[in-house]
Amino acid sequence: MRKPVVGVMGGSAVPLEVEDTAFALGQAIAQRGWILLNGGRNCGVMAASSRGARQAGGMTIGILPDRDASAAAPDLDVAVVTGMGDARNLINVLSSDVVVALPGGAGTASEVALALKNGKRVILLGFPMPEMFEAERRTGRLTAAQGVADAVVQAAEAIGPT
Amino acid sequence: MRKPVVGVMGGSAVPLEVEDTAFALGQAIAQRGWILLNGGRNCGVMAASSRGARQAGGMTIGILPDRDASAAAPDLDVAVVTGMGDARNLINVLSSDVVVALPGGAGTASEVALALKNGKRVILLGFPMPEMFEAERRTGRLTAAQGVADAVVQAAEAIGPT
Amino acid sequence: MRKPVVGVMGGSAVPLEVEDTAFALGQAIAQRGWILLNGGRNCGVMAASSRGARQAGGMTIGILPDRDASAAAPDLDVAVVTGMGDARNLINVLSSDVVVALPGGAGTASEVALALKNGKRVILLGFPMPEMFEAERRTGRLTAAQGVADAVVQAAEAIGPT
Amino acid sequence: MRKPVVGVMGGSAVPLEVEDTAFALGQAIAQRGWILLNGGRNCGVMAASSRGARQAGGMTIGILPDRDASAAAPDLDVAVVTGMGDARNLINVLSSDVVVALPGGAGTASEVALALKNGKRVILLGFPMPEMFEAERRTGRLTAAQGVADAVVQAAEAIGPT
Repeated sequence: MRKPVVGVMGGSAVPLEVEDTAFALGQAIAQRGWILLNGGRNCGVMAASSRGARQAGGMTIGILPDRDASAAAPDLDVAVVTGMGDARNLINVLSSDVVVALPGGAGTASEVALALKNGKRVILLGFPMPEMFEAERRTGRLTAAQGVADAVVQAAEAIGPT
Repeated sequence: MRKPVVGVMGGSAVPLEVEDTAFALGQAIAQRGWILLNGGRNCGVMAASSRGARQAGGMTIGILPDRDASAAAPDLDVAVVTGMGDARNLINVLSSDVVVALPGGAGTASEVALALKNGKRVILLGFPMPEMFEAERRTGRLTAAQGVADAVVQAAEAIGPT
Repeated sequence: MRKPVVGVMGGSAVPLEVEDTAFALGQAIAQRGWILLNGGRNCGVMAASSRGARQAGGMTIGILPDRDASAAAPDLDVAVVTGMGDARNLINVLSSDVVVALPGGAGTASEVALALKNGKRVILLGFPMPEMFEAERRTGRLTAAQGVADAVVQAAEAIGPT
Repeated sequence: MRKPVVGVMGGSAVPLEVEDTAFALGQAIAQRGWILLNGGRNCGVMAASSRGARQAGGMTIGILPDRDASAAAPDLDVAVVTGMGDARNLINVLSSDVVVALPGGAGTASEVALALKNGKRVILLGFPMPEMFEAERRTGRLTAAQGVADAVVQAAEAIGPT
C-alpha cells in the first residue's frame, strides 16, 4: 500500500512569506504521513516545501526538468531526472493524488491546468483562482484554501481513508 | 529558410462558430504562406483549422498525443506521433513562432501558460484573457485579437519580416 | 491522404562516406514522393539526409531534442521543437512509417530498439545488425539493406501501395 | 544527502529464474542502503526486483509509462506516473546513478543504449553484451557481471564512497 502523494506546485522565485507557507505545508504533509512531491529544484516553493517535509521526517520526491540532478533541492529523498524541461510538469500532476498550488507564474498555471485536464483534485493556496475554471470550481474539483491547515484538511478529504 | 509556423490551439469539443473561426484562421494562415501547426486530432479546433489551411493550399502539421496516427485529422500533411499525451502540449508551443488560442478548456489553458513560460508570443482569439498574466499583457507578449483578420495582422507583426 | 514518412536515423558525427549515403538516401526518399523525417540537427546523418531530400524537391521534417531551433539543419521544411532531449527519439520512430538506420552510436541504437519495441519496420543501412534482435530478423521486421537502392525498395515494400 | 539510486532494467515477461535474479538483486540493493528504481509495472523484472527490495526494507521507486498507477507493482513506495509511454525509459536511466540490465527485449535494449548515450555506468546481468558498444566496454563504462553479488560489487565501485 503506497502512501498518498501530495504535489506542491509554486514559483521558483517567490516572496519570503510564500516560502514560509511552503515550508509549513511541507511540514504538515509529512506530519500526516503523506509523501511530498514537487518540481525538485533548489529554489522557491520547491526548496522550501521539501525542507519543511524533510525536517518533519517525511519523504520527499522531486521531479526535475534538467538532464542531471545538479540543481536539485538538498532535502529530497529521491530526485527523478527527466531531462524533459517543462514537459515534466505533466509528470508532477499525474504522480500526485492531490495538487496544492501556491503563488507562482506561468509554470504553476500550466500545472493547475494540466492537473484539471487530467481529472486531479486541485487546491489553491494563494494561487489566484482562474476565472475560466468556473465549471471545475462548481463541481468542487478546484477549491481555494484559507491557509495551510485548511489546505491539509481539504487534501485529507480528497485522499479519503487510507 | 523555413516558413513561419503558427500554432493554433483550442478545444476538441467547441461550438460550431468556433470551428468556423478555426477554419477561417487556418485559411488565412495558409494564404499568408505560413505553416499551420496544431494538436493533430480529428475534432474541434484541430480538425477545422487544418481543413481551412489545407483547402487554401497551405502546409499543415499535427502533433498527436497518441501512440499512433489513427485519430489524426484528415487534412494534415504530417502527423507527428508523440505517444506522450498532454506532454505534447509543450511541443505544440515550442514548435510555433507564434501561438493563437481559440476557445478551449484546461488543455488549451496549459498551452497558453506553457507558451508564455517559454517566451512565446500568444494571441487570444476568443480564449478568455487570464487575469494572472497581467504582466505578460503589459509587455505585449499576450494580446487579444478582435477577429481572424486582427489575429493574422498581430501574428505577422510577431513574425516580422521573412 | 498523407504521404508516407521515412525516418532516417544515424550518427551526428560520421565519416564522409556515411554522409554521402545519407544524402543519396534523402534524394531517393524525395524522388519517391515520401516525406523525410530525422532528428533535425545540423550535423551528420541528419544534415546530409535532409540536404539530399530538399535538393530533390522533397519535404523534410526534423524532430529536435533542443528547446529552440537554433541548431536545426538548414534544409528542414519544419523543425519540431520538443525540448525533451533524447526522449524525442521515441517521437522519431513513432512518427515514421518505416525507419532506416545508418551508422551511428548509442542514440541510433536506442532508436532501432524503440522502433522495434513499437512494432515498426526497421531497415539497417550500414548500422550493424544487433544479435539480440534475432527474433525480429526472422519475422522480417528487421532487415539489412545492401545499399541505398535496396533500402528504398525494401521501404517501398514496407509502405505498400499508396 | 540522497541515497544512491540503482536502476534495474529488464523484461516484463521473463523466465522464472530471471525473476529470481531480479528479486535477489532487489534484496541486495536494499541491504546496501541504496534506492531501487525501475519501470514500475506489476510484471517481470519490475515486480520481482521491487518485491525483493521491499522485503529487505529498502525504498522502491517505479517510473510508470502509463497515465495512472493502476498497473503499478504493489511493492513500490512511490509510483511516478509519466503518461509518456516508452519515453519514460530515458527518465529511468537519467534518474539512476548506475544501471543494471537483466534479460529483456527491445525496451531493455533501448534503456541500455540511452544510458550509455547519457554517460551512465551500465552493468549487464544476463543481458547479452551488444557488440556495437565495444568502445564503451573498453573504457569500462559497460561491463558484464557474473551474478548478483558481482553486480552489486561493481555497482558499489561505480557509486563510490557515500
